[in-house]
Amino acid sequence: MEQLEIHILGCGSALPTTRHNASSQVIKIGNKQFMIDCGEGTQLQLRRQHIHFSFINHIFISHLHGDHCFGLIGLISTFGLLGRTAPLHIYADPMLEKVMKPQLDFYCKDIKYPLFFHSIDASKHCVIFEDNTITVETLPLNHRMPCCGFLFREKPKRRHLIGDVANFYNIPAYMRQSIKDGADFVTPEGAVIPNAKLTKDADPSRSYAYCSDTRPCPEICGYLKDVDLLYHEATFAESEKERAKITHHSTAREAAEIAKKAGVRRLLLGHYSSRYENETALLSEAQEIFADTLCANEGVTFTI
Amino acid sequence: MEQLEIHILGCGSALPTTRHNASSQVIKIGNKQFMIDCGEGTQLQLRRQHIHFSFINHIFISHLHGDHCFGLIGLISTFGLLGRTAPLHIYADPMLEKVMKPQLDFYCKDIKYPLFFHSIDASKHCVIFEDNTITVETLPLNHRMPCCGFLFREKPKRRHLIGDVANFYNIPAYMRQSIKDGADFVTPEGAVIPNAKLTKDADPSRSYAYCSDTRPCPEICGYLKDVDLLYHEATFAESEKERAKITHHSTAREAAEIAKKAGVRRLLLGHYSSRYENETALLSEAQEIFADTLCANEGVTFTI
Repeated sequence: MEQLEIHILGCGSALPTTRHNASSQVIKIGNKQFMIDCGEGTQLQLRRQHIHFSFINHIFISHLHGDHCFGLIGLISTFGLLGRTAPLHIYADPMLEKVMKPQLDFYCKDIKYPLFFHSIDASKHCVIFEDNTITVETLPLNHRMPCCGFLFREKPKRRHLIGDVANFYNIPAYMRQSIKDGADFVTPEGAVIPNAKLTKDADPSRSYAYCSDTRPCPEICGYLKDVDLLYHEATFAESEKERAKITHHSTAREAAEIAKKAGVRRLLLGHYSSRYENETALLSEAQEIFADTLCANEGVTFTI
Repeated sequence: MEQLEIHILGCGSALPTTRHNASSQVIKIGNKQFMIDCGEGTQLQLRRQHIHFSFINHIFISHLHGDHCFGLIGLISTFGLLGRTAPLHIYADPMLEKVMKPQLDFYCKDIKYPLFFHSIDASKHCVIFEDNTITVETLPLNHRMPCCGFLFREKPKRRHLIGDVANFYNIPAYMRQSIKDGADFVTPEGAVIPNAKLTKDADPSRSYAYCSDTRPCPEICGYLKDVDLLYHEATFAESEKERAKITHHSTAREAAEIAKKAGVRRLLLGHYSSRYENETALLSEAQEIFADTLCANEGVTFTI
């Protein structure tokens, strides 16, 4: 089974520090790569982490605060300098394209690849991307401006045909796909071989959710049930709960409460305030509520 | 005498690498700080190099290629988040403000400090900034778009009044400034004490020039005579001279020829192409022509 990897390029918040970059992640599934958010310095982080620029075809922007999108113009320009020809799709609030328009006109008039902006309505839960193996859904969040999370789900996969059994029954090639989809096999003599004898269970369909920036949103828990990994912002510790409320962010404890209520498998904290010199307090605060919690960090890859 | 320091935040070229950031420098003279160029990631470099954001009041942008200005919007926003109230002055081609306008309207409408854009005509040599101790002149360069260098000059300084001598003659306080400016002292008895007996030479007025990006410009050599330190782009080695011509850049040898022709004291190379894994070849190529050549590098400070 192909690895599903989350590469953390940046998990800091508004003020960049020497410890954390502005928000950005790359989701790798085989040779597909999806980017979420693109704060300043994202292209440098791609270089540092040896991630191939050319496999990134879809960029999802949660909201338009600078620490989530100021790296876009540099990345778009660099794609041009590198001779990219493949289309690039950006999913964001429609204001992003308006704000970037004069920059794009000035800097990107000679790029050789098509650049598409797709409008997101952050207030709605809906599928905004789909290909043969993946869907991406928006998760409406609660921040100081329109903001949504993203839920990546693999589609149900085909069952595995057991090679020896398939050979024993001499199953013709043209029937194999339907058997992988669950069909029984009928021999030329009319005997029905039940699918369970021919196939093994499909690989599990994995899922990953990204929720940043937001106050805790119990409304999204229904969408997050059994999600393998939830990245949830934990800008503050509980001691700064009032500040979290005012700035529309979450505490580590609140992130853990969402993880617990939703019934996700693992929780990944991020979007740390620059006031913390390390994440120990945030982590232990979350783990009191939800044991299977991890802390994001630049250069670290989380595998599902 | 206060140190005059050049802090290199970035000395790479268009494509950022793990070795070099996009162009930016801070010139420190006492507690005055001037920034030249502001490529993506500049605010991160300021953090890494422990340079105080709040002393930067003037930013000079050589030209509008992204690797020289994509970090501006992040820096302007961060100044706002940090509660800056002091005015910020940006000197650049007037197109910069136009290109940034919707971004500034969207991201910076709540900033509490005045932001001023000052138009540069890159084709003209003139003084664009002056205060009590410094002037900054433009140097017309030859690039693929309007581009100018910047020449920082300290104004002539006052001579040092020799304390013991001043006390011996009982020179009143109100006369001391004019003596530092070169006046003789006339005692109450009418004796003329020549200035040379009262004062020591003033500290030298130092100068620093920044020339990037450009083909070699012999026309500017007249302005560079006796300049203490010349930062000159050396994007390529001589082996890539044709590419240097096509892209309107300089080779290391060409940079050294300008330094020699102009009669500067020291040469500092920078703006290296991403193709070079180190700068050894560029340095030795330049040193063959101009011995007192150094290589810029991120985190390194050059003192005049």
